[in-house]
Amino acid sequence: MEGVCLEALNFAGNLNLNKLIVLYDSNNISLDSGTDKTFNCDVKKMMEGMGFEVITVNDGNDINAIDSAIEKAEQSSKPSFIIIKTIIGFASEHQNSNKAHGLVLNAEQLEKLKKDLEINNLPFEYERDVQNHLQEVKNRFKLVEKEFDLRIKNYQKKYKSEYKELISFYNEEFFDAYNYLLSLEPVQGKATREVGGMVLNYLASKYPQIVGGTADLSSSTKAYIKDGSNVEKANFNAKNILYGVREFSMAAITNGLALYDFMPFASTFMVFSDYMKGAIRLSALMKLPVTYILTHDSVAVGEDGPTHEPIEHLAGFRSMPNLAVFRPCNYEETCFAYSYSLINKAPSLLALTRQNIPYVSSTESIKDVEKGGYIISKEIKKELHAIIIATGSEVPLAIDAQKSLLEKGYNVRVVSMPCVEVFESQTNKYKEKVIPKSFESIVTVEAGSTQPWYKYAGKRGCCIGIDTFGESAPQDYLFEKYGITTANIVKKTIEVIKNNKSKTYSLLS
Amino acid sequence: MEGVCLEALNFAGNLNLNKLIVLYDSNNISLDSGTDKTFNCDVKKMMEGMGFEVITVNDGNDINAIDSAIEKAEQSSKPSFIIIKTIIGFASEHQNSNKAHGLVLNAEQLEKLKKDLEINNLPFEYERDVQNHLQEVKNRFKLVEKEFDLRIKNYQKKYKSEYKELISFYNEEFFDAYNYLLSLEPVQGKATREVGGMVLNYLASKYPQIVGGTADLSSSTKAYIKDGSNVEKANFNAKNILYGVREFSMAAITNGLALYDFMPFASTFMVFSDYMKGAIRLSALMKLPVTYILTHDSVAVGEDGPTHEPIEHLAGFRSMPNLAVFRPCNYEETCFAYSYSLINKAPSLLALTRQNIPYVSSTESIKDVEKGGYIISKEIKKELHAIIIATGSEVPLAIDAQKSLLEKGYNVRVVSMPCVEVFESQTNKYKEKVIPKSFESIVTVEAGSTQPWYKYAGKRGCCIGIDTFGESAPQDYLFEKYGITTANIVKKTIEVIKNNKSKTYSLLS
Repeated sequence: MEGVCLEALNFAGNLNLNKLIVLYDSNNISLDSGTDKTFNCDVKKMMEGMGFEVITVNDGNDINAIDSAIEKAEQSSKPSFIIIKTIIGFASEHQNSNKAHGLVLNAEQLEKLKKDLEINNLPFEYERDVQNHLQEVKNRFKLVEKEFDLRIKNYQKKYKSEYKELISFYNEEFFDAYNYLLSLEPVQGKATREVGGMVLNYLASKYPQIVGGTADLSSSTKAYIKDGSNVEKANFNAKNILYGVREFSMAAITNGLALYDFMPFASTFMVFSDYMKGAIRLSALMKLPVTYILTHDSVAVGEDGPTHEPIEHLAGFRSMPNLAVFRPCNYEETCFAYSYSLINKAPSLLALTRQNIPYVSSTESIKDVEKGGYIISKEIKKELHAIIIATGSEVPLAIDAQKSLLEKGYNVRVVSMPCVEVFESQTNKYKEKVIPKSFESIVTVEAGSTQPWYKYAGKRGCCIGIDTFGESAPQDYLFEKYGITTANIVKKTIEVIKNNKSKTYSLLS
Repeated sequence: MEGVCLEALNFAGNLNLNKLIVLYDSNNISLDSGTDKTFNCDVKKMMEGMGFEVITVNDGNDINAIDSAIEKAEQSSKPSFIIIKTIIGFASEHQNSNKAHGLVLNAEQLEKLKKDLEINNLPFEYERDVQNHLQEVKNRFKLVEKEFDLRIKNYQKKYKSEYKELISFYNEEFFDAYNYLLSLEPVQGKATREVGGMVLNYLASKYPQIVGGTADLSSSTKAYIKDGSNVEKANFNAKNILYGVREFSMAAITNGLALYDFMPFASTFMVFSDYMKGAIRLSALMKLPVTYILTHDSVAVGEDGPTHEPIEHLAGFRSMPNLAVFRPCNYEETCFAYSYSLINKAPSLLALTRQNIPYVSSTESIKDVEKGGYIISKEIKKELHAIIIATGSEVPLAIDAQKSLLEKGYNVRVVSMPCVEVFESQTNKYKEKVIPKSFESIVTVEAGSTQPWYKYAGKRGCCIGIDTFGESAPQDYLFEKYGITTANIVKKTIEVIKNNKSKTYSLLS
């Protein structure tokens, strides 16, 4: 019944994944009721429509019939769907009832059930041949491992350079690519989705395990490997997967790819991440190295309006454990975000702009980017009046505000925070250097929910953001309307400085 | 392709909604490519499997053929699905190409298109009979309005008491029910899902416009109107909708019900709200008075483990504009949450516990509950050492901690915050009374992401919560493991007090 299943089945049918065999446990019962109340569907016909070969097994207790069905499915030129008619709570008091879903049998009921099923040993005992079978399986797996090791050894002898490449992969030398990218002339003035597409293509040319796709939006999100061709019915030797308009199953399938040692990405507009929240949560829970490339990351989307303008999404994702959320502001940060996502032993999420952004770069070391949060534009004098923390498209505005504030006599630092999670993982010493804990005059700027930023702004700072839904209008109009402007940053910063007047903080050099 | 559509279509087929006519614009093109790459599906067969009558119109430009198909569909005893073959970008340069999705025609291309289509007036002119038709429609609607007013007047004369009831509905006198509920003996020591089920049933007995359902979990979430019977193929005169395991379409359909002046609810486990995030966002964006009843609201779910244990959900929903998020701790707060959801001109979300909670109640006025955040247990002396803010199942723990802290010589206030959004809408004076802005020693407690609480705890307070995924274990073990205990609240509160020692705040009475 779940949409994600129907999407995934449809996707499998579309690519005619004939190795897929789905065993469908059909007992006509769900938690609240019989499925006669909720699922009057000719499943066979529906699945045939989706391109499956449908096989029915009428008695789910007939192991031989299931075996035969599987064998038949293995021969099929289509993906197969085996409908297996079963009886929930078989032989128990709750047989064929939705109660069998949740009710636990008491000792007496359990004893009766076991007696009826001729299971005589209580509480439970498995038979000798089960044990033998499991031992045999164990041995078989050991053999597979041995054979694999041997193959790798032979591979090493035969294909020296490829082996080196393989080992470099397992040794996480992805930062070689990152350093190379940093050595290039930075791309300037482009949207981070454009920069992202370029970085992705470079990385994909180095690391063949990078594959992925979008939910019918690669022309917009730029998450497309240009010389990777498309996975199609007749071509699985490709790197781009056209998921169709199926976000949830895209993310679920991407989790599956990550489990098979790919370094997969999945991409759509940020606002459509809503559809795949459940699967993103599983990436995080299972610590799967999936890269979510989510573009059109703020109201700057503009004319498409509030249905397409993320507001609460960054806050929602930052509150999810194990997920590294990046919102880069320039070439260097975008390179870092992608490179980090490759070595991250958990999912990463890249929030990228639709619109072009003016290029800004660190006044300090470019390698500070790797800290997740860093001083991108240092204060001029020792006596610091305020710190402005910004992300993504708002960083250039913050730097403009810094200049303007300096003219008005205020000495301000700008911190770019492309990844809160990476910043938080730094030493206390580093964090204290960038954002001293006792420093009160902190202004944060992000074109989205302010919720994540009170941690830094505290009760005496100010969080500039958008806590209402957006509107359909040109980008500039919207940023003006919601106060995502240099002028508003200047105004709020001065307010904060004045409110905390007695507390001007002298930085030790 | 979207799962939510497949779910909704399946749902419509299940109930044989024969008045539903779906017009399916089939142009074989999506944004990135032709659908031959992404949607090789026998749609007719699939839809027939789902219980639809399928009619095909081969030329989408043939209005008469579409008309005939609709007429045929109207006669059908099944829901109908009209496949209309169209040509995207018809007659333009991008005819039949995915470019027609996004590319804007330039002036020259536009002129050519209009010429080819024999549209001679530029930029555009509608014909006289279109104008006449629209005027006629306008007049017809005016007549409908007039007739409606007349009917209401006659109704008022004929059915005095029912009319009074109707007017009371439109005048938002729901708080009568709330006050009645408050006058009863409070239910004690139960899970808030249980209390919620009772409150819902009382309100539903008063207000017939309350209808709703669950995604196959009414026996767990208790969101079921006991004498309301179930909507079924042969019975639409009912109040409970069995949505099956279809969360996303449940929420989408519930939005539709809200647009038709019902006061609908939708219910499932809180963690499954992930599946319907997109539709909840639409409730909020459209300000639809939907009540989301989400139970099993923390790691206290226990044995079902992290896939069933919400962590980031409250943070995510609190960052969504226009949504009132409630996490009640007792009978009074649960009554308020439900009653508020009925008068709220926007969606409300109720986070309810699976587990029983000890009953605690306000030491001050019970009516303070309506402020969204209030002093549930006042400090004893004037000199205040700390404020503990808690929600839901953690409020009793906070009150226990308060007692323990008093024994150790610390004078602490406990604030219950069932709804941050309602609290924030109070006057500054009230908010200042409950949580003085300049007061530093604030500890917040909620068994979920700490992100929403820094706003109150600031940088000198402490947020007790859970910022990792949960585990499968008994509830008590988990609360102990994650520090959601009286002992930990006591410990952290003392730490905060000691750190802010110089800042003890004397409350003015």
